[in-house]
Amino acid sequence: MKNFEKFMRAAVELSREKMNENAGGPFGAVIVQNEKIVGRGWNAVSSKNDPTAHAEISAIRDACQNLKTFDLSGCEIFTSCEPCPMCLGAILWARISKIFYANTARDAAEIAGFDDENFYAEFQKSPADRRIPSQQIGRDAAIEVFREWHKKYDKIEY
Amino acid sequence: MKNFEKFMRAAVELSREKMNENAGGPFGAVIVQNEKIVGRGWNAVSSKNDPTAHAEISAIRDACQNLKTFDLSGCEIFTSCEPCPMCLGAILWARISKIFYANTARDAAEIAGFDDENFYAEFQKSPADRRIPSQQIGRDAAIEVFREWHKKYDKIEY
Repeated sequence: MKNFEKFMRAAVELSREKMNENAGGPFGAVIVQNEKIVGRGWNAVSSKNDPTAHAEISAIRDACQNLKTFDLSGCEIFTSCEPCPMCLGAILWARISKIFYANTARDAAEIAGFDDENFYAEFQKSPADRRIPSQQIGRDAAIEVFREWHKKYDKIEY
Repeated sequence: MKNFEKFMRAAVELSREKMNENAGGPFGAVIVQNEKIVGRGWNAVSSKNDPTAHAEISAIRDACQNLKTFDLSGCEIFTSCEPCPMCLGAILWARISKIFYANTARDAAEIAGFDDENFYAEFQKSPADRRIPSQQIGRDAAIEVFREWHKKYDKIEY
């Protein structure tokens, strides 16, 4: 068995095991660095009352704690389902180098009843047309903080 | 002062205070329910080694812990900057009803040097054209878990 099949099997086993423990939805993910699993995650939205506790977000947080970094460049993520927009964003911020996925966002919508596909459609729209109304206020005060950040001599960039 | 100005001021104050404490980037957010702040968050990416610890994600997690729910329907989020795609995804999953933001994604890119705008562009592309290569493997095994979820009699939907 090729290594990448082994890692995906680990992600899928995690999705089944944690679903059966009622942690949350049927999703699992592992992060791999140099052919070794360095982080694991599963959906724990309902058990942890945390709508951000998706498998990929949880796996990224776990890998970052284990490796003591916020930068997973060179790592791969194996996830039992195509990442939703939130998790794709997290993968981008974490600088993960490659995504392996098994189920698609359409499978998540059609078979498992999740909103991933609708959410992707939201990102194709201009902000004014999205389902959640959005209003800009108070930029004059907020932009001062960005200017202070720009000038901050001891900032840690990420 | 109108309430919504007061809430945005709280978000911006949090962004400055936590930036100055070197928690992370210059971002703050509060969640409001019935004209009361029920959750607070700030960027803590570098101090917590957590690339997902953006202000909005942290505020959502805080509000959900305080309210003991994963559903923030009826709540508003006040964030010192337009949410990045990860955070917009989190806001969608949390079912937040309205977004107030101050700085724009362009401000974040131009003044503060963050990638938000580039990341939004990624979501306009088809998966094959995105910067992170993505490969589907092992759907046959993974889709079984979705079918088991579909049939699961005691699942908590979210």
